Amino acid sequence: MSELIIHEVGPRDGLQIEKTTVPTEQKIAWIDALIASGVDVVQVGSFVHQQKVPQMADTDALFTHYAQPGRRPARTRLSGLVLNEKGMERAFKCGVDFLCMGVSASDTHSRKNTGMSTTEAADRIVAMAKAARDAGATVQVSVQSAFGCGFEGVVPEPRVLDLVRRFVDEGLLTVSLADTAGHANPAQVERLFGAVRALDPRVECACHLHDTYGFGLANAYAALRAGVVSFESAFAGLGGCPFTAVTGGNVCTEDFVHLIQRMGLRPDVRLDRLIDLAKDAARFFGRDMAGRVYKTGPVPTIAPAGA
Amino acid sequence: MSELIIHEVGPRDGLQIEKTTVPTEQKIAWIDALIASGVDVVQVGSFVHQQKVPQMADTDALFTHYAQPGRRPARTRLSGLVLNEKGMERAFKCGVDFLCMGVSASDTHSRKNTGMSTTEAADRIVAMAKAARDAGATVQVSVQSAFGCGFEGVVPEPRVLDLVRRFVDEGLLTVSLADTAGHANPAQVERLFGAVRALDPRVECACHLHDTYGFGLANAYAALRAGVVSFESAFAGLGGCPFTAVTGGNVCTEDFVHLIQRMGLRPDVRLDRLIDLAKDAARFFGRDMAGRVYKTGPVPTIAPAGA
Repeated sequence: MSELIIHEVGPRDGLQIEKTTVPTEQKIAWIDALIASGVDVVQVGSFVHQQKVPQMADTDALFTHYAQPGRRPARTRLSGLVLNEKGMERAFKCGVDFLCMGVSASDTHSRKNTGMSTTEAADRIVAMAKAARDAGATVQVSVQSAFGCGFEGVVPEPRVLDLVRRFVDEGLLTVSLADTAGHANPAQVERLFGAVRALDPRVECACHLHDTYGFGLANAYAALRAGVVSFESAFAGLGGCPFTAVTGGNVCTEDFVHLIQRMGLRPDVRLDRLIDLAKDAARFFGRDMAGRVYKTGPVPTIAPAGA
Repeated sequence: MSELIIHEVGPRDGLQIEKTTVPTEQKIAWIDALIASGVDVVQVGSFVHQQKVPQMADTDALFTHYAQPGRRPARTRLSGLVLNEKGMERAFKCGVDFLCMGVSASDTHSRKNTGMSTTEAADRIVAMAKAARDAGATVQVSVQSAFGCGFEGVVPEPRVLDLVRRFVDEGLLTVSLADTAGHANPAQVERLFGAVRALDPRVECACHLHDTYGFGLANAYAALRAGVVSFESAFAGLGGCPFTAVTGGNVCTEDFVHLIQRMGLRPDVRLDRLIDLAKDAARFFGRDMAGRVYKTGPVPTIAPAGA
């Protein structure tokens, strides 16, 4: 479990639903703080059309900023979400070498999000992912709405596994299952990731969980048990997909780090810095954030009596 | 897992920390609603001195109310917390036949809560529990602060297991581990309940979890996996021990029911009634409650297209 990867998606999935425009300088300050906290990957933005998601309009500028000499983080990788070939072209132009892309297992969600059916979207994404890999990039492919859909309700597990099989057959082995609507329950998380790993033991499983109904950390623990190695989360519990029905924030990064550190995992990550970051986000947005530990503080470390 | 027991402790652990006095008629209305929701056990109150916890002053009156002909619930059992021999005498006087009592594994917490060391308190509780059992009552014994203490920090697992062994050696086989301070993490929950069950497979494990740091449902899932059969929780996420350091509410009953129903468990419990109850509590206290599903509504059940 020492290889557990924390993939911070706050600057992308966290912000895309926010009405208040976050200035580029503010994003850089937050991304710098995330890098300093020691998370492994930061998703900087999405190469979506700026009319569709105005908050992502500075994605190219952000990547260009971090591509400058002396600004490239030493240990943290920066990922970008791409939705189509044009976005991928933009990503390559500003030096992105870690690309995330996905297909929704729900036809309704897929059409609302991309204008394409699941099958059409899968054809496109598989071709894009292979091209990105052949160009030398790290590629993570995901199945969105893998655990249920705000429009369709239950998403049959074979639909999810068929998509994963397509990825695996093409040698795309870093696979994320996304609980876009927050419908997942922990038993389902263990079962579905178990089924994915049974397809091919080489698959490196990632999860992207939302806390819409308060099940986020329970599902994260279930994913850990099921051998998931990469966890997407957002600082301050920001987030929610703007193209789904009922929405809720991503699993909160600092709460997730608090939880896993209580279990002895990733003691190197600076929880104190993540807590400061969440407080800063609360100040910026002028509201209570979804996270918990930024309010309570971490479980106290108390020296034994007489020590 | 079909025997999973929901033990509602809101009227006791949920209310004892509240500053607003809840009138007896209001408590009766809430307890009636809990009974109607189909939870298995409702903890009506605590036989503590009314000067120590004024909110519990009507515990005898409440039990007397439900002992009247026609008011005894058909399927739901009513439990009461007792702290000492005098409290047990009061409990028997008003017909209580399900008694809960506990010992804190933290000496500091034990002294603040009862004025006695863990060892002294254990002697007393074991004697009381045996007397109650011999009188024909159902008895649940618990280890408080079993997963950490707001005063002492880490509580060594052997201290917890030694207490459980004392209970088991006396034939007291319904044992609850309480995460009084909310410090528990899911790996610890699985490990400690595993160790308890390894002591004696006849032990019927119960858990009493708090959500202080947001780990409540993750810990509940871990407890389920570890074979725990009885779950204490409080409607609207009320609660917190008035005699501990940092406090947070109990695991929220309606959120827990929502979670387990998503996993196919206890479909008989009326989640809609529990949600109405949480809304009523929010109106009564005039504030947002800790629970989630009373705000979001449950995960929607959507008919398949064309159905």
